[in-house]
Amino acid sequence: MTKLENISMIKEANIYFDGKVTSRAITLADGTRQTLGVMLPGDYTFNTQDAEIMEMMSGELEIRLPGEEWKTLHTPETFNVPANSSFDLKIKTVTDYCCTYVEA
Amino acid sequence: MTKLENISMIKEANIYFDGKVTSRAITLADGTRQTLGVMLPGDYTFNTQDAEIMEMMSGELEIRLPGEEWKTLHTPETFNVPANSSFDLKIKTVTDYCCTYVEA
Repeated sequence: MTKLENISMIKEANIYFDGKVTSRAITLADGTRQTLGVMLPGDYTFNTQDAEIMEMMSGELEIRLPGEEWKTLHTPETFNVPANSSFDLKIKTVTDYCCTYVEA
Repeated sequence: MTKLENISMIKEANIYFDGKVTSRAITLADGTRQTLGVMLPGDYTFNTQDAEIMEMMSGELEIRLPGEEWKTLHTPETFNVPANSSFDLKIKTVTDYCCTYVEA
C-alpha cells in the first residue's frame, strides 16, 4: 500500500465506456500529473496526447501498442505509450492502474 | 470541478463487487477521511463502521436506509448513514460519489 502525500486532486471522476473505465486526476507535490483509474473487463481503444507511463497495480490485460503485436501483461508491469498515438487494450481481469503523463 | 489541495491518498484502489464499485481513500488537510468512488448499475448492500455522509456527484440511485422505505435520489444529493448499520442501494446510472467518514 503506497501513501501519496501532499498531492492535489480533481474531486470528480473521469467516466468512460459507461463507467467500465474510470479515473481521477492528481498532481504530485513535484508537479507530475497522473490519473489513478480502474478498467473493467472489455475491449478499449485509447488515444494519447502526452506520452504516458502506465503502471499496473492489479489485473491482467492484453495490449497492442502502435506498430506492435498483441502481448499479455500481468501485474506488476509497466508500459509506455507514445504521445499523439492510440493503443488497444483487452482487459482480462479488473485492472487498477496509475498513468503518469510525460510532458514533451 | 472541485480541486482538493494538500491531501494524502492511498494509491491503490478499493475494489468491490467485481469492480462494479471502486474507490480510493484520501485524507484532507484537516484530517477528514473520505473515499472517492464510482458505482456501476446494480444492487448492493453496504455495511458501515463509522457514520457516513454520502455526496452524489453524478448518477441516480434508489436507497433504503435502516428502518426506512426505498427512495429515489438524483444528483446533486447527499444522504447520511448511521454507524454500525447497513444500507441497500440500487444504482440506476453510473454514480460518482464522495463518502465522508464521521468519527464518533
